[in-house]
Amino acid sequence: MRFEVKVEVVPRDGIANPEGATIERALPALGFVNAGNVRVGKVIQLQVEAESAESAERVVEDMCNRFLSNPVIENATVEVL
Amino acid sequence: MRFEVKVEVVPRDGIANPEGATIERALPALGFVNAGNVRVGKVIQLQVEAESAESAERVVEDMCNRFLSNPVIENATVEVL
Repeated sequence: MRFEVKVEVVPRDGIANPEGATIERALPALGFVNAGNVRVGKVIQLQVEAESAESAERVVEDMCNRFLSNPVIENATVEVL
Repeated sequence: MRFEVKVEVVPRDGIANPEGATIERALPALGFVNAGNVRVGKVIQLQVEAESAESAERVVEDMCNRFLSNPVIENATVEVL
C-alpha cells in the first residue's frame, strides 16, 4: 500500500533560528503586534510503499535519523496521513 | 488568549521543487527504494494573541497572503493547535 507521509523538521529550543527571528522583527512594522515566538523549519511530504502505516512510519523515521534531519539541532516529527 | 499556530507552505503541483527532487534522486542509493514523490516546503510555527481560535486563524491567514507565502507558486495551510 502507498502511504502519504509528512515530516516536520524544526530547530530545537535554544538553537538559533534566524529566519524566524527575521519574520518576528518584521511583524510590528507590518501591523501584527500580537504575534511572536516565530520558528521556521522544513516540511517534507513523501509517498512510501509499505505493508502497513507502522512500517511506513518506521521507514521514514529511519530516513530522518540518517539524512532528513540533524538530531543534534533539530526535532523531527513523522506523521502518516 | 494565546494560540499556537502552524503554517505549512508547500510549492504547488507543477512548480519546480529542486530540494525534493534532490532527496528523491538520493533515496535509492541510500537503500530506500519504496519511497518517492518528495516535496519540501516550509513550516512556520508562531504564537498569536487573539480572542478566539477563529480570529487567530484569520490573522495568520492574512500574514500568509501578505508575506509568509507566495500564492502564485505556493499553497499555505493554517492550523491552530
